Amino acid sequence: MIVLLTNDDGIYAEGIQMLGEALLQDEELELYIVAPNHERSATGHAITMHRPLRAEETHFYHNTNLKGWAVNGTPSDSVKLAIEYLLPQKPDLVISGINRGANIGTDVLYSGTVSAAIEAIILGIPAIAVSLVIPPADNKAPDFRFAANFVLRIMRYICEHSLPADTLLNINVPNRARREIAGVAITRLGLQQYRNAFQKRVDPRGKSYYWLAGEPEETVGEEGEDTDVAAVKKSYVSITPIQFDLTNYQMLDSLRKINWEI
Amino acid sequence: MIVLLTNDDGIYAEGIQMLGEALLQDEELELYIVAPNHERSATGHAITMHRPLRAEETHFYHNTNLKGWAVNGTPSDSVKLAIEYLLPQKPDLVISGINRGANIGTDVLYSGTVSAAIEAIILGIPAIAVSLVIPPADNKAPDFRFAANFVLRIMRYICEHSLPADTLLNINVPNRARREIAGVAITRLGLQQYRNAFQKRVDPRGKSYYWLAGEPEETVGEEGEDTDVAAVKKSYVSITPIQFDLTNYQMLDSLRKINWEI
Repeated sequence: MIVLLTNDDGIYAEGIQMLGEALLQDEELELYIVAPNHERSATGHAITMHRPLRAEETHFYHNTNLKGWAVNGTPSDSVKLAIEYLLPQKPDLVISGINRGANIGTDVLYSGTVSAAIEAIILGIPAIAVSLVIPPADNKAPDFRFAANFVLRIMRYICEHSLPADTLLNINVPNRARREIAGVAITRLGLQQYRNAFQKRVDPRGKSYYWLAGEPEETVGEEGEDTDVAAVKKSYVSITPIQFDLTNYQMLDSLRKINWEI
Repeated sequence: MIVLLTNDDGIYAEGIQMLGEALLQDEELELYIVAPNHERSATGHAITMHRPLRAEETHFYHNTNLKGWAVNGTPSDSVKLAIEYLLPQKPDLVISGINRGANIGTDVLYSGTVSAAIEAIILGIPAIAVSLVIPPADNKAPDFRFAANFVLRIMRYICEHSLPADTLLNINVPNRARREIAGVAITRLGLQQYRNAFQKRVDPRGKSYYWLAGEPEETVGEEGEDTDVAAVKKSYVSITPIQFDLTNYQMLDSLRKINWEI
């Protein structure tokens, strides 16, 4: 099995390194790491068109045959370049993560982690995105071990059952010890809304600037218990199947009934 | 009616300027333009978190009360900042465009134009995204006039019928005179795949670099005539209703049947 590992926190981030080490325990796995050379969070599905990309070969973990490339682009660039050019053949699975911080609800649209996995399924490769849920108020250091082991289990599931070609699994794992995790919830994407989205400040020269800020709104009650937003709040591992067709099929018929003369 | 106009080609691009002029003919309209200060194509749904944003007040069109701000961020930043901070009240409609170049099929995931409109519907504001389809082989200069007039008609439709809160219309208009346009097609998103995605080159110092390249694959026959990809190929105006919930609902049940022990 050939696995491509990527992320959006950058190739040297703790989450991808921990996951890489866990995956290397499986000796039947052929592992490649291709990821941005520095943090590219909140880049959404951006790709680099107006300048060329560089891919620098990178070595981690002594005494392994692991190959890695650090790309001076976005997570989606990294996956595209890896699959279309760098890897000797197409991978069987792309894993994006482990991200430091949740990727849930509407926020997945901004997520470099999830977008890297979406790039994979666009190219016909099954994918999973994995994130560690670290609530802002929580002072615990991130511990990627349980999440890394969970990824190994999910991989076995995918080997046995396979995923639909156009679907990835978006997995959010609480930053907790195994005994504190409530279970696994299969969820739909919730709505993650923020209040006080921007803070206005004034620079030393009297000109205004705006910081993206915002605290998540507590909307769980209103929009249902079966969302990823609700699941992670209750310390569940959340697994959401995600596809990339944004068409609103319900609306096609009503639009077709309109007389659209040119 | 309060309308916010944005784009991803930058606030001084011809497409947004032409559309702004067309909209100003409607005297009952209160128009604001908030858009990136330079081209931000292919930025997907990126948002700016790690540096603050600036919004510079900008004036166009003499003798109008139009207010505009040029933002040093992405299209999504521009819409978020406009709605959450800059505008005196929430707009009734966000229009993103007119983009120079099609936004169809899987490519909408990379599109700054469509992502700006998605940002609007996330914030509960109806939106349309408008793009001018300019085939690479076509040597005709872009002519935004028919597209601008079509936007005025769509606006009237939205005023009368309203859109579902979570849905935008993604409109692709051929770069042709009215008499050469085949009609209006209500479409689903197609699959836009590319071959030869990257070109490898070697710089004067002997190091490799990679340009994103690629020509669209002709996949229309295989995947159906009701897609936007097929419609624009036949010189139709394509209208696709788009929503932002990426959940694969069909897969929820089969995943829930699995025994997920922690």
